[in-house]
Amino acid sequence: MDAASRSNALMAETGSLIDTVESGGGVMRFPETLPLRLEGGGQLVGLEVAYKTYGTLNEDRSNAVLVCHALTGDQYVASPHPTTGKPGWWTQLIGPGRPLDPSRYFIICTNVIGGCMGSTGPSSINPATGQPWGLTFPVITIGDMVRAQTMLMDQLGIASLFAVVGGSMGGMQALQWATEYPERVFSAICIASAPRHTAQNIAFNEVGRQAIMADPDWRGGDYARLGTRPEKGLAVARMAAHITYLSEPALQRKFGRELKKADVSWGFDADFQIESYLRHQGASFVDRFDANSYLYITRALDYFDLAASHGGVLGEAFRKARNVRFCVLSFTSDWLYPTTESRDIVRALNAAGARASFVEIESDKGHDAFLLHEPIMEAALGGFLSSAAKARGLEP
Amino acid sequence: MDAASRSNALMAETGSLIDTVESGGGVMRFPETLPLRLEGGGQLVGLEVAYKTYGTLNEDRSNAVLVCHALTGDQYVASPHPTTGKPGWWTQLIGPGRPLDPSRYFIICTNVIGGCMGSTGPSSINPATGQPWGLTFPVITIGDMVRAQTMLMDQLGIASLFAVVGGSMGGMQALQWATEYPERVFSAICIASAPRHTAQNIAFNEVGRQAIMADPDWRGGDYARLGTRPEKGLAVARMAAHITYLSEPALQRKFGRELKKADVSWGFDADFQIESYLRHQGASFVDRFDANSYLYITRALDYFDLAASHGGVLGEAFRKARNVRFCVLSFTSDWLYPTTESRDIVRALNAAGARASFVEIESDKGHDAFLLHEPIMEAALGGFLSSAAKARGLEP
Repeated sequence: MDAASRSNALMAETGSLIDTVESGGGVMRFPETLPLRLEGGGQLVGLEVAYKTYGTLNEDRSNAVLVCHALTGDQYVASPHPTTGKPGWWTQLIGPGRPLDPSRYFIICTNVIGGCMGSTGPSSINPATGQPWGLTFPVITIGDMVRAQTMLMDQLGIASLFAVVGGSMGGMQALQWATEYPERVFSAICIASAPRHTAQNIAFNEVGRQAIMADPDWRGGDYARLGTRPEKGLAVARMAAHITYLSEPALQRKFGRELKKADVSWGFDADFQIESYLRHQGASFVDRFDANSYLYITRALDYFDLAASHGGVLGEAFRKARNVRFCVLSFTSDWLYPTTESRDIVRALNAAGARASFVEIESDKGHDAFLLHEPIMEAALGGFLSSAAKARGLEP
Repeated sequence: MDAASRSNALMAETGSLIDTVESGGGVMRFPETLPLRLEGGGQLVGLEVAYKTYGTLNEDRSNAVLVCHALTGDQYVASPHPTTGKPGWWTQLIGPGRPLDPSRYFIICTNVIGGCMGSTGPSSINPATGQPWGLTFPVITIGDMVRAQTMLMDQLGIASLFAVVGGSMGGMQALQWATEYPERVFSAICIASAPRHTAQNIAFNEVGRQAIMADPDWRGGDYARLGTRPEKGLAVARMAAHITYLSEPALQRKFGRELKKADVSWGFDADFQIESYLRHQGASFVDRFDANSYLYITRALDYFDLAASHGGVLGEAFRKARNVRFCVLSFTSDWLYPTTESRDIVRALNAAGARASFVEIESDKGHDAFLLHEPIMEAALGGFLSSAAKARGLEP
């Protein structure tokens, strides 16, 4: 039975759930009797979680891997993006002979709640009003994103994940899973991430939010109802954020002071290649992303602080997760979530007596390295997963 | 004779020039017969240069010090700002017993052309149309800013400056003076600066420009004529830039994840102190700065490349400046213009056989350190100036 038919079958079993299944995935719609409880209080009724799957769930349901996406990612981890047509964002890791091989693992990737690719978010219709939520959507947290994922796993009949894997905000979800639901996680892989946002992280997010909210087409967040799109503000937000994804050396190597034409324009056109690159990043982003989702997801990132609910002691957060196998990877030139953040995680794991592998990968590509072809990352991930698979009894 | 009366007397001598003198400074208006030649081609007719002075020019006119300001600075280096009422931006360096003591030196600070505090810039009236220049103002360079300063020095009867001092963009002007007019510069002090903008520097400036130009109140740059102000866009530009002025450790020390109130708002108010700090930086900036000036001055910064006109070899730029005494200062935590940039300058100075003092100052305050009370900077500057003053025969 392939993943899609299994999913359909599961849907049929649960009865009250409707699932518009595509090949390997779909949208899980939860009935009113299964609302999502929210950390900020209240609950989301009529929750929808969009997801993609690759591979087949094995008989004892022990080979499921949840891949968690970053701020502007989505469930199209190894499939062409429906808007841009670009390949999945982690195809270097997912595929035959790759660390996450669909012939071995049942791989699931969900669009986070608050997102804009099918899961309930601020651009969804509020069932109570029949209008897009806009800013009446509740502020959600990384914990809420993960709780929605647990609800999907319940429906898919997956009691325990072989692995939860993610980079950046995806890494935070992996940590959240391991600390909040340790009995449901065999291994957790956290790449280029952090246990909390620093003041500088919050500052960059706030610039992005202010850029969006400064756009008159944002209209107090009600643009979907009023038929406008705050594209300029969202593009500026993306441009500012994009700088933080790249290292200074990588920018210098890729662009330096190279001009687009033979000479400068003596005006405000994009003279330098870095300028037209950034403008392109901004312009193409608005075609595939929703401005309010950007506000809500950056807010979730800023609120994330794994230690906070454990008396501010990160090690305490991991105390219940001592049986989870952790793999922590960082990149030397990542200045958004620098290696020091990953070391904090590893130190806390050690303090809690948890099993932790840690590799700091030499790369000049900055934070974005986790999305690129990085042989050492792929080898480290492959090795960790193989060893965990043996321990789980998944070896062929 | 004090500086103001001397300035008045000089104006009287030159006849054709009108100077609306304040105590120690004023606005120098150049006649049509003395236009400013521009690097991008053409010239500015009816140039005005606003400036402040402190102290008295000595009999042999050998004690003049030009202080050059940074991107958003102005001529109020040691006087209260006329808009904000805040003290001068470098009072820790200028004053009795301080490195730049007005009892010893005749200190001049000009508003750069392209600026908005009295020197000709995009918000000035184009004499040809009677309307604000807006985007019809020509793109200017650091070289143009400095050439305007040489014209002011000519009018003030100052053939040679004892020192040119500046931080950040001010440091670029000091380097430009020393390399373009070495016979007019006895010593040059370049603090927290760089010989050219990197791709990352250009990228941050481009985000700021895009934020301004995305504001519908910018109106194609014609807002002054049309009676609007692109305040929101300018505030976002300032917020993004402000992050680059502070180091990550300083942000963390000052703000960390501290909240404004006891708990988060579960909304998009400023929950974290860093958010309200940034919002305040943005909001207060728009009261004192012009959006088009921000475009033009950031463009001048991006175009700056001291080596470019010397075959790309920085050492060649300094070859004519071998008799200038250079002092280069940098701060360990400055990531806008990191120490490596200052080292490039010093290496090039050494290659050219020029005299160079270099101090890298341990500080966690980031780029902004040059504007703060930094005892080692003050001591280094004081020592360098004393020694240069002896060599110049300025010792009491």
